[in-house]
Amino acid sequence: MTNNDELITQVEDIGWEKRLAQRTRSMKPSFIREILKFTARPEIISFAGGLPAPELFPIREFGEACKEVLRTHGEEALQYGPTEGYQPLKQFIAEMLSKYGILVETDNIIMTNGSQQALDLIGKLFINPGDCMITSAPTYLGALQAWESYEARFCPISVDGGGIIIDDLPAILESDHEHKLIYVLPNFHNPAGTTMPLERRERLVEIAREHDLVIIEDDPYGELRYEGEYITPIFRLAPERTIYLSTFSKTLTPGIRLAYVVSPKTIITRFIQAKQGADLHTGTFVQMVVNDICQRGFLRQHVKRLRGVYSQRRDMMMDAIAEHWPQECTYTRPKGGLFLWAQAPEQIKTREFIDKALEMNVAFVPGFAFYPGGEGGDHAMRLNFSYANEELINEGIYRLGMAMKKELS
Amino acid sequence: MTNNDELITQVEDIGWEKRLAQRTRSMKPSFIREILKFTARPEIISFAGGLPAPELFPIREFGEACKEVLRTHGEEALQYGPTEGYQPLKQFIAEMLSKYGILVETDNIIMTNGSQQALDLIGKLFINPGDCMITSAPTYLGALQAWESYEARFCPISVDGGGIIIDDLPAILESDHEHKLIYVLPNFHNPAGTTMPLERRERLVEIAREHDLVIIEDDPYGELRYEGEYITPIFRLAPERTIYLSTFSKTLTPGIRLAYVVSPKTIITRFIQAKQGADLHTGTFVQMVVNDICQRGFLRQHVKRLRGVYSQRRDMMMDAIAEHWPQECTYTRPKGGLFLWAQAPEQIKTREFIDKALEMNVAFVPGFAFYPGGEGGDHAMRLNFSYANEELINEGIYRLGMAMKKELS
Repeated sequence: MTNNDELITQVEDIGWEKRLAQRTRSMKPSFIREILKFTARPEIISFAGGLPAPELFPIREFGEACKEVLRTHGEEALQYGPTEGYQPLKQFIAEMLSKYGILVETDNIIMTNGSQQALDLIGKLFINPGDCMITSAPTYLGALQAWESYEARFCPISVDGGGIIIDDLPAILESDHEHKLIYVLPNFHNPAGTTMPLERRERLVEIAREHDLVIIEDDPYGELRYEGEYITPIFRLAPERTIYLSTFSKTLTPGIRLAYVVSPKTIITRFIQAKQGADLHTGTFVQMVVNDICQRGFLRQHVKRLRGVYSQRRDMMMDAIAEHWPQECTYTRPKGGLFLWAQAPEQIKTREFIDKALEMNVAFVPGFAFYPGGEGGDHAMRLNFSYANEELINEGIYRLGMAMKKELS
Repeated sequence: MTNNDELITQVEDIGWEKRLAQRTRSMKPSFIREILKFTARPEIISFAGGLPAPELFPIREFGEACKEVLRTHGEEALQYGPTEGYQPLKQFIAEMLSKYGILVETDNIIMTNGSQQALDLIGKLFINPGDCMITSAPTYLGALQAWESYEARFCPISVDGGGIIIDDLPAILESDHEHKLIYVLPNFHNPAGTTMPLERRERLVEIAREHDLVIIEDDPYGELRYEGEYITPIFRLAPERTIYLSTFSKTLTPGIRLAYVVSPKTIITRFIQAKQGADLHTGTFVQMVVNDICQRGFLRQHVKRLRGVYSQRRDMMMDAIAEHWPQECTYTRPKGGLFLWAQAPEQIKTREFIDKALEMNVAFVPGFAFYPGGEGGDHAMRLNFSYANEELINEGIYRLGMAMKKELS
């Protein structure tokens, strides 16, 4: 490719950095992305990504749905569509949510390209530079990434076994910042693996009403519960001030980038405006394919299957940790979702330990990646248990245990 | 749905507007969106949207590609993928572009959800509130929408039969604003239908180098040329400072939301960061399906077919205008693309005339929608000729002519 060298590789750098907007200074390359590069190597046992098990993907059902959609609605499926999303799919979502007490109409729903886009649109709609977002610490690092690019600051609340420590919230609200939003992951928290009990959800709503806060309820894993009873979503407790996010990424497949936002109609109208400028609409074809799959009743039976497999993998991971890791290690016992949050012994800093782990062909995400500004989680690691099979989970956890013991000796 | 009424329709409005970020004040509902609501009615002859002809969509080829991708790469197709896009598709794009003198490697390309997302990411990367974007007037209204949400101001340059009047550019640059970017649509301009001759492109590059400007070259229709010779893209003339955008929306189908950005690698790295926070990545499945279609050599033959049909529709529209419209009307004679830009007689304001047209079941987009702040294009209308068939084009243009004559009498 000599021409190439001539025209592109060797062009002068016109000083792009100096042309960039102020907000790009808050945009950081993702540490997770760096780790995921390693995990592409086949010899790596990866607990790093939040990847579903690919061997469970409904490939056959997908193929049938593609065929059916193209046969019956081909022209519509390949044409531009409405910004708010495909109406029959939104109808399906409204019916599905009603089973969980989230009683809404299709006008309360907008489809997005994964929940990451929902987080980005929230930033666009709500965050002025310097605004403070209240989040758990640790929290979902995609939320930090989305909102850093709107120059948000973060007010962290610590997490215990029941999610954010709600009693810490009033003190934060009485400090001198002006707060507008609180971001929570009540079910099977990413990365902490914890679930907020009903009393905490109720207390959160009480405080939010008192201080006039908006609550962002991110619920990607709600359906992936392996034990215990379903807990009332915050949206049901405070529909007037909650923006509820969920997705098909974990229950169906992530490679289609399909998620949704539920909120009062006033604010959905603003989401539609913002999304129109951001990418016009989410792909019509993919929405119609997912609608076809869902209307056949497949989603429910598929989620049941996922629950079976993932809960066994979770159990295997917990058993393997108990067997192979130093006794000082602690970890959450998640009742659902994809992640377990573990604490290494105090002598081990996971930000450095990850290199040792990668040498042994095992990947995880070090805790600091989930803290605003990277401040916290020095000894923590997020371990995903949905992607690797049971045999690999046991082997990977064993290797991590050996590596830790070596560090300690 | 009584529960619904209880929980959502009747919840109090907590005053969402006052919570929104400053930038939302610049975000306006799209006038085009309002018109497109009418065009969903089957009795309407629509020249309003930029919609490709759905009867030409490659539905069969799409079905075959879906089947093949799921059969051979099902797990990969449904899993998370890299933010920059699917490597083999980027390879195909690099090879395709090389035929037009755009000689790049895959690292110079990022896939986006339609070119609208590329425009949004450009805003995120480059625009501080109050920054001035130089655009033609009229210009693509999606660009205005994308950049208004980053609180851009716009410096308009007028358009004549050869695109932007390049000789006006130095005066604009010497005014007191600090300018960083100029946005151009050199081929079959949306909405003006004009094409920049080579000399103007060269002159633009000269001025851009002198004033250290970045050029955004938006080229959605470049392949849809119906007459004349292909003109060297600006990117080839100034690869060091051009961000080139193109899309599969017009050559294949828009319902899959698949487009791409080409630029020096330094800035692609920043696009990747911004896109990661915005939506992680563009759907894997759709990228692999399009790759499969393209690798079979189908795109080229399909574009040939589109050229045949669309050029006939363009001719029909021009003939019908000549026959049925008042003599004072003028219009561009586009050599490609999807749009013709017409000027009604001075007595007719198209912002009001659109209501008369809709009464006669014909839709177009009034000119003002394509001007920053809606200031300009009072007598202009954008007419799309790709969506309706020849018979409907003739009938629709006839009705518009009758309506205009009625206004004049």
